[in-house]
Amino acid sequence: MQLRDNLATETGWDITEQRFDSGQLVTNGSNFMTGNGYLGYRGTFPEWRKAEYVGCVVSDTYDNADGKWTELCTVPNGLFAEAELVDIVSDRSPVSLFEGKTFSYERSLNVRYGVQHRSVEWGRGNEIEVAIRDARFASYTDLHLLCQTYSLDAHSDMKVRFTAGIDGDIWSLNGEHYSDRVTGEQNESLYFDCVTQEKGLPITVATTVVMTGAQPLRSSRRMEKNACYVVYEFELESGQRISSNQYMAVYSGNDSGDPRRAALSSLERAVETGYEALLVSHKAVWDDRWNRCHVTIEGDPAAQTVLRYCLYQNAIATPAHTDHLPIGARGLSCQAYQGAAFWDQEIFNLPVFMYTEPEIARRILVYRYRTLNGARKKAEDLGYGGAFYAWVSADTGEEICPSFFFEDVLTGRKIRNHFNDWQIHVSPDIAFTIWKYYQATGDFEFLVDYGAEMMFEIARFLWIRAFYNPARDRYEYIRLLGPDEYHENVDNNLFTNYQAQYSFRRALQIYQLLAERAPEALETLKRTIGLSDAEPEHWQRVLDKIYIPAPREKDRVIPQFDRFFELEDVRPDELESRLLDPGEYWGWPNGVAVHTQVAKQADVIQLFAIHPDAYRRDVMKANYAYYEPRAQHGSSLSLSVYSMVASWIGRMDQAYEYFMRSCTVDLFNANKAVSGGTFIGGIHTAASGAAWQIVVFGFAGARVHQDGVYLDPHMPPQWDRVEFLMTFHRNDLRIEIGRSSVRLQADPANAEPVPVLVRGDRRSVAPGETVEL
Amino acid sequence: MQLRDNLATETGWDITEQRFDSGQLVTNGSNFMTGNGYLGYRGTFPEWRKAEYVGCVVSDTYDNADGKWTELCTVPNGLFAEAELVDIVSDRSPVSLFEGKTFSYERSLNVRYGVQHRSVEWGRGNEIEVAIRDARFASYTDLHLLCQTYSLDAHSDMKVRFTAGIDGDIWSLNGEHYSDRVTGEQNESLYFDCVTQEKGLPITVATTVVMTGAQPLRSSRRMEKNACYVVYEFELESGQRISSNQYMAVYSGNDSGDPRRAALSSLERAVETGYEALLVSHKAVWDDRWNRCHVTIEGDPAAQTVLRYCLYQNAIATPAHTDHLPIGARGLSCQAYQGAAFWDQEIFNLPVFMYTEPEIARRILVYRYRTLNGARKKAEDLGYGGAFYAWVSADTGEEICPSFFFEDVLTGRKIRNHFNDWQIHVSPDIAFTIWKYYQATGDFEFLVDYGAEMMFEIARFLWIRAFYNPARDRYEYIRLLGPDEYHENVDNNLFTNYQAQYSFRRALQIYQLLAERAPEALETLKRTIGLSDAEPEHWQRVLDKIYIPAPREKDRVIPQFDRFFELEDVRPDELESRLLDPGEYWGWPNGVAVHTQVAKQADVIQLFAIHPDAYRRDVMKANYAYYEPRAQHGSSLSLSVYSMVASWIGRMDQAYEYFMRSCTVDLFNANKAVSGGTFIGGIHTAASGAAWQIVVFGFAGARVHQDGVYLDPHMPPQWDRVEFLMTFHRNDLRIEIGRSSVRLQADPANAEPVPVLVRGDRRSVAPGETVEL
Repeated sequence: MQLRDNLATETGWDITEQRFDSGQLVTNGSNFMTGNGYLGYRGTFPEWRKAEYVGCVVSDTYDNADGKWTELCTVPNGLFAEAELVDIVSDRSPVSLFEGKTFSYERSLNVRYGVQHRSVEWGRGNEIEVAIRDARFASYTDLHLLCQTYSLDAHSDMKVRFTAGIDGDIWSLNGEHYSDRVTGEQNESLYFDCVTQEKGLPITVATTVVMTGAQPLRSSRRMEKNACYVVYEFELESGQRISSNQYMAVYSGNDSGDPRRAALSSLERAVETGYEALLVSHKAVWDDRWNRCHVTIEGDPAAQTVLRYCLYQNAIATPAHTDHLPIGARGLSCQAYQGAAFWDQEIFNLPVFMYTEPEIARRILVYRYRTLNGARKKAEDLGYGGAFYAWVSADTGEEICPSFFFEDVLTGRKIRNHFNDWQIHVSPDIAFTIWKYYQATGDFEFLVDYGAEMMFEIARFLWIRAFYNPARDRYEYIRLLGPDEYHENVDNNLFTNYQAQYSFRRALQIYQLLAERAPEALETLKRTIGLSDAEPEHWQRVLDKIYIPAPREKDRVIPQFDRFFELEDVRPDELESRLLDPGEYWGWPNGVAVHTQVAKQADVIQLFAIHPDAYRRDVMKANYAYYEPRAQHGSSLSLSVYSMVASWIGRMDQAYEYFMRSCTVDLFNANKAVSGGTFIGGIHTAASGAAWQIVVFGFAGARVHQDGVYLDPHMPPQWDRVEFLMTFHRNDLRIEIGRSSVRLQADPANAEPVPVLVRGDRRSVAPGETVEL
Repeated sequence: MQLRDNLATETGWDITEQRFDSGQLVTNGSNFMTGNGYLGYRGTFPEWRKAEYVGCVVSDTYDNADGKWTELCTVPNGLFAEAELVDIVSDRSPVSLFEGKTFSYERSLNVRYGVQHRSVEWGRGNEIEVAIRDARFASYTDLHLLCQTYSLDAHSDMKVRFTAGIDGDIWSLNGEHYSDRVTGEQNESLYFDCVTQEKGLPITVATTVVMTGAQPLRSSRRMEKNACYVVYEFELESGQRISSNQYMAVYSGNDSGDPRRAALSSLERAVETGYEALLVSHKAVWDDRWNRCHVTIEGDPAAQTVLRYCLYQNAIATPAHTDHLPIGARGLSCQAYQGAAFWDQEIFNLPVFMYTEPEIARRILVYRYRTLNGARKKAEDLGYGGAFYAWVSADTGEEICPSFFFEDVLTGRKIRNHFNDWQIHVSPDIAFTIWKYYQATGDFEFLVDYGAEMMFEIARFLWIRAFYNPARDRYEYIRLLGPDEYHENVDNNLFTNYQAQYSFRRALQIYQLLAERAPEALETLKRTIGLSDAEPEHWQRVLDKIYIPAPREKDRVIPQFDRFFELEDVRPDELESRLLDPGEYWGWPNGVAVHTQVAKQADVIQLFAIHPDAYRRDVMKANYAYYEPRAQHGSSLSLSVYSMVASWIGRMDQAYEYFMRSCTVDLFNANKAVSGGTFIGGIHTAASGAAWQIVVFGFAGARVHQDGVYLDPHMPPQWDRVEFLMTFHRNDLRIEIGRSSVRLQADPANAEPVPVLVRGDRRSVAPGETVEL
């Protein structure tokens, strides 16, 4: 079925690009990418180079090459492969998709297994001369490994030169990351050693090319300073095929003491195992993953497909294999957003894991624990204390968000945005998620080992950051940047204050829990972090008197922050018309949205989305009605939030529309790639993670509280059935929601019954039991 | 003696322009102005019109014509007079200083009596044809009256048409202020009635022209919609003289129920009295004023002259006749700065009055009392309480500083500056001055009737505006704009916090004073303003724990505000080179100075200047050394402050240099007239007022405390003697400081001895006594 003019799916798992669009090199390179949480390989073509944004982004390679942007490195492209026709006239004429005539073209991505295909039929005259087919995947059994097959069918007699190997001239967003580059060969493999500029991290890419089709006439190697290739020359008869399997392995000094040796032995194992067998074991891992995270939608194949696409992107963006790396805001699709975590990680990416593969959520939260010192340093650097988590968090957790990055495109002046010092809600958002994880899993050990320390340090920060307003006898947060980033320097942002309040409450609850269940651990922790008995009392005092902006009497709308309603009340399209340059940043300090009520993204509504039971439905409705027309959705984090809240207040048309828009921000290239002179393209992993939430939290109305799983479905009318898994305290529950029924199936391996509450109907589903409602 | 290339003085009281500079029409129009605190008449020529920035600015005519700027109105020019040669060739050829040949030219201002002269000799060929002389003054005996003489000497036979009357086509800075205009004649007078756009205020300008020289051939009247003139035609022989006395009277509906009648009867009286007699009585008023405020400098005629110039400008800017009008930041020299008071009024303009003509200082402070409701409204509008005085204060005291006025000249976008909501130090600056006035005068009645209420409302505001930082156990002021306006949105600005602390201390002291000496008045006041017994305790609490940034250990430099030293440390000239456009505003939100340590003006040093005994000399020295090279002096308020502090720390070279620069900002046209697209020209009355302070507070080291007058002279080496008057609790003391002696002379009419402390030597000077030290 057709998803869009140029995109189709046959199976509901494949996304196929039917026509090549040279204007979308950057975005489609991301959209068709493969990856495995360790590396991301853009969905480019084997014969492409830097100009076509070829990039393999590798995790844990943070480096700063231009003095401003710390980012992940792109590594030399070990999957380079190019067939050239060497013939009559010129003795060299490259096969190109941009010259001559393309008789057929297809680029596709199988999201079930993360395999990307390309096939093209091409000729210089009116006849097909060659058909090329290639495919590649980033292995889930060896995360350092990429596997590629390539074949060329000759439709006439021809001489072909096939060059494959490692191309070092690669796309890098912000500067040249390598100071040293050495190419070499060992046995059947080529390798490319490089060392990063800033940190001196060694990285090796190695490649082995195994030719499997027609026999070459000659073979040779081309070793250059910035590339190394094997070259095969063929004289083909019509009907003959050149084919190769090509393996690329990547290791950095953070993975191994000897990256070259590790890469070469990874290749040896790969060659020994062979492409097909590698694919089989790789698929088995994916099958297991899908068993847990898949969400079935019956009756709406387009929705099913784009949802799977999002689940895929969220999965491959996540370094599920480790507890010391973050989920990048653009995953590993490119270097944008510095390969680093934002609050998106906790609020948008983690829920799907928390409720389907909680051990992954745990690992990512442990990453926050491992970066606690970075958060402490940031708090201290800014004159506070406790843990102020980085707005942009990489390996160490120190703040790597530059103070100046957006540019006033009208003047060329850099803008001092305050993402890195005023957007404090990141800390309470992490606290919120720690508590949510504990609610979902009952993982007390996590609290003792990691969670409590983070919570206490966050509460400490929030206490120090609060001000007491003596005349109003209340605590306030002053000079904030809430989720809506167009409004910097605001006071008492509802979202921030509420999340702070929540954090104090949960920190005190955890303090109590530890006092009861692990008093010695608590004492040790208190000594370690210098927590006096008085400090929780301070938290309690702020908790008791923190100011939470209330709904206005007249219409129940809550001000997003103090004096919000005094701002100019216009709509986003009016602001659009005020732009002097389409590339202008709309926000701080003097963008078109600053002095208006237009928000970049959900803010009050964002609060509702993560606290669905905090406000009455009529308040939600009133605020949705008010804020929805004023939201620009300039952030990919906004659409999903509006979808969920629309579901809960019964605006099903809007809920569905926002769902589809959110799931396709990347696929339909709906978001701009540059703002205020800064590249912000790549996969919007928050929207990917949010897709699961929209269906499960939004349409199915699921939430997990301490006492079990709640369901309150509001399905789009065109959907017949939705099925998904939720795990509660390590017990799996399969939930099927039909047009008029709910079916709950507890896994026979569960240790305990799962308490469920469907629209007020409380059940307990015993291990192996199926309940129909 | 020559003051500058184009400016000279003969008497030390006259400033003479020797060459006409058509590029300085705006500034020299201000510099040569006459005025009397009710109106200001720019130092333009009688035949000039709108294009030459002719303007008569009248106090108490606030009006908003363009929806943005409330400002004083300029009124029709009733001193218009033009002589035209009507001759052989064209039958009409205007006498012009810009065509033909000027044989001699002089524009001068006598600052002793506020009389402005112009004389010019002119001819079309190589011979002088006419000599014109004119002079004018704004009467101090009838504040509504301007008097002008005009004469033309014919050096050959000629036909001359002389036109005089009221020209309604006048310079107005921000829009057309008049909706209605009616011209008319009554007896010998012409009149021009107009009504302001916004407020419907009627204003009448009336003029009478009395011809005193050669007899005209013919006379007629020309009544137009926007002008009315008398026209006289002469046939002159060589040696004959045309001459006229012209009187202009202005009244608005705020001065009289029938402005036209009032203006016409003012003219009648004037004509009856005659120009010379009017000048005599006018001079008598000035003589009295100078007797009190004059400061003699012997040994430095240039310094003496420019100091007198400043005292003159400060005097004519001040509405000394009333207690319901402010001193405008540009006085009545033009409409810039809205004819309104800023903190300049208290800190820069009032001290000279406070210590020489305290009844004027009292009246201006009562103006602040009369605008208390405006300050209350502003506080309430911004969500506070108490009195938050307007940044820009006109008749009602409501804030008239627009939220958007500067323009980003690079983009044309308006800038939201926060002068009107973050620059809170204006309230404590008024409190400071109320206390200083009380110290200087002992005027307890003022405290009871006016001062206490203002002080309490200011303390209330400051209490509500303060935040308590729980983690640091201190009160803070967050989001400020201190005196240095390039740094908006700062925390704990030393100047602001210190002034707030001072205000709490003095408010509590006054509360105590009233409790002891006027308990009933206190009770009444408490009831009136709803002051509970608990509230002073709140003030005390803030006073006890307010955060005052301390000098750094390593070099005793005090941060201007939190984290100041983390800003880029550059110098003003480096920033100058970063400008993309010379008209750029340097400050908020993205000007070149924002993220640097470059200050527009004194800030820490400003605090020292008004609290000379608050810090040790070594701290003053260290801070002067640090901040001086970082001050751009982009405000005319800065130079005087640096001069005074330089005196106190013994940097006499710099003290003198800053004194001369400060006294000549207008005269030498040293400040730019436009910034960020906004006209900011006109007389810098703060610098005018500050001139007295530099000599008396700075060089003479005088200060007044509750226990008397302190002196600690540090004279510029070239000065032989300085003499001035100070009044302490209504007792006058004439102070003479010679090269090695101090002479104190108490007025025989004093009621009490004056306590004086000269460098630690305490004396009491009895009425009539002279003491030499």
